[in-house]
Formats: sequence, structure tokens, C-alpha cells
Amino acid sequence: MKKLHVALLAALGVVASLPAAAQFQKPEDAIKYRQAAFTVMGNHVGRIGAMAAGKAPFDAKAAADSAHIVATLSTLPLTGFGEGTDKGLPNRAKPEIWKDAAKFKAAGDKMVAEVAKLETAAKSGSLDAIKAAMGGVGGSCKGCHDDFRAEKYSAN
Amino acid sequence: MKKLHVALLAALGVVASLPAAAQFQKPEDAIKYRQAAFTVMGNHVGRIGAMAAGKAPFDAKAAADSAHIVATLSTLPLTGFGEGTDKGLPNRAKPEIWKDAAKFKAAGDKMVAEVAKLETAAKSGSLDAIKAAMGGVGGSCKGCHDDFRAEKYSAN
Repeated sequence: MKKLHVALLAALGVVASLPAAAQFQKPEDAIKYRQAAFTVMGNHVGRIGAMAAGKAPFDAKAAADSAHIVATLSTLPLTGFGEGTDKGLPNRAKPEIWKDAAKFKAAGDKMVAEVAKLETAAKSGSLDAIKAAMGGVGGSCKGCHDDFRAEKYSAN
Repeated sequence: MKKLHVALLAALGVVASLPAAAQFQKPEDAIKYRQAAFTVMGNHVGRIGAMAAGKAPFDAKAAADSAHIVATLSTLPLTGFGEGTDKGLPNRAKPEIWKDAAKFKAAGDKMVAEVAKLETAAKSGSLDAIKAAMGGVGGSCKGCHDDFRAEKYSAN
């Protein structure tokens, strides 16, 4: 059986691209990964935000599902900002991410904490609780974007 | 408070880009979303696959965390293949996705089911159970890629 699994996974390219004990083989992989996590998170924060802002009908289950997705993904992007991942693919990471790593980590931890509160609020089914939590989430997103995300994509 | 949230979200661009009751405003958004979900899923399936193949040390918690991420994301990509989302960004979606929508949906449902089994296996902490479940996951990934994913990216 084991050979079958390895063959299947090799066919998918997932084994070959993952050396032991390394999450990302190339800087490009880390950049793609963190951007992907942010893309999905942004979409689902947007769905909850639309409900919170009265731009979309409130759907408690959809909001809770989206909040769970965002919370589950929240710790992932930060793992994709290791040393040497400033270049490799077009991206908007400012040099301050690595120059002031402690501040960046604090901003990331803040986002994770705010998103956890949003998940709790969404589980409660209360739109008012969601609105309150979205204030914190929106603030943490914006604060980090202001400090650490460039307006334009880099050339590589 | 409500105005503050709306202002923050508008600043983030998430309210403006989300009309009521629509998950994606433009085909590009759907393509980017489904690709992003697959990117994160592929990375975490790869981490578990490396452990299953003996290419990385078995870390039961990391495997369970990865399996939960994959399971949480598993239903998302399929929502990004609506009509008209074959073009807009470079992608590898074959026309068969829309020509044989029932078969594509079945392939997607199969993946979701196999990934759910993987999450259960990973929660158990048994590497043997994970290996067995990975056979199903790898097979469902490969089957769908063979039938519905092109070798090369489209021009747009």
C-alpha cells in the first residue's frame, strides 16, 4: 500500500516538492502560500463585512462558516514570511516586515486574536456581536496593511 | 459604531467589492479564490503526504492541524467554478468542467468525502490510519486533475 501512496503523491507533485522538515522549498512557494491564505481570508472577511454593513442579508450559518474559515487560516500567512521570502514572486511585502520583525509579529498576533473573537461572535449567531468583533478585525487588517503592505506589487 | 466598521471595511476594499448576495463580483475573483484555496490545500496535503511517505518525521499534531485546514477548505474551490469563470485569469480549468458539470461535481464531492476521512484519521493520531486515508485523498486529487485540469495555463 505504501508504494501506492507514494506513487500517487509523486504523481501529484506533492512529495517531490516537500523536503523533510521544510514547509516551503522555495521562496516562491512561501509567497504563493501566504498570498493564497490571505486571498481566502479576505473573501470570507468580506462576506461577513457585507452582512455587518447591511450590504448583504444576515445569514447566521454563512457568517459562522466564514468566521471559522478565517480563524482556521489566520495563523498560516505569518509562516510564509520567513527570511528570504521578500523576493521570488510579485508581492506587496514591505521591507519593514523583516526590519521590524517584532512589530510585524505583534500585528499578526493581534489579527489572530481579533479573528478568534470574530469566530466566537459568529458562533453566537448575534449580528450585533459580529458587528462589534468586525471592528477589531477590520482595524487589525488595516493597521497591518498600512504598516507592512506596499501599494504596488514588486517586480518579482 | 456601525459607521466606523463600514469605513474600515471600505478602506480595506472588502465592502465595495462585494455586492449583496454575490460571492464573487468578477470571474477573476472566483478564479483567484479557487486557486488560492487549492494552493493552501495542496501545501497541507503535501505536508501530510511527506509524513505518510516517510519523507518527513511524523508529527501527529501537525498532521491533525493540516488535515483540519484541508477539510475546512475542501468545499470552497468548487464554489469558484460557476458559469463564466473559465476565463479572466490564467488558469488550468478544462472545458469539461462545464460540459460535464455532473461528473465534475461528483469528483469534487468525492474529494470532500476523502478529505473528511483524512481528518478523522489524523485526529486519531495513527500514522497507519493516515496512510490509508491518504490513498483515497491522493486518488481523488489525481482523478480530478487528470479529467479536469489542463497541463498548461490558459492565456487569460
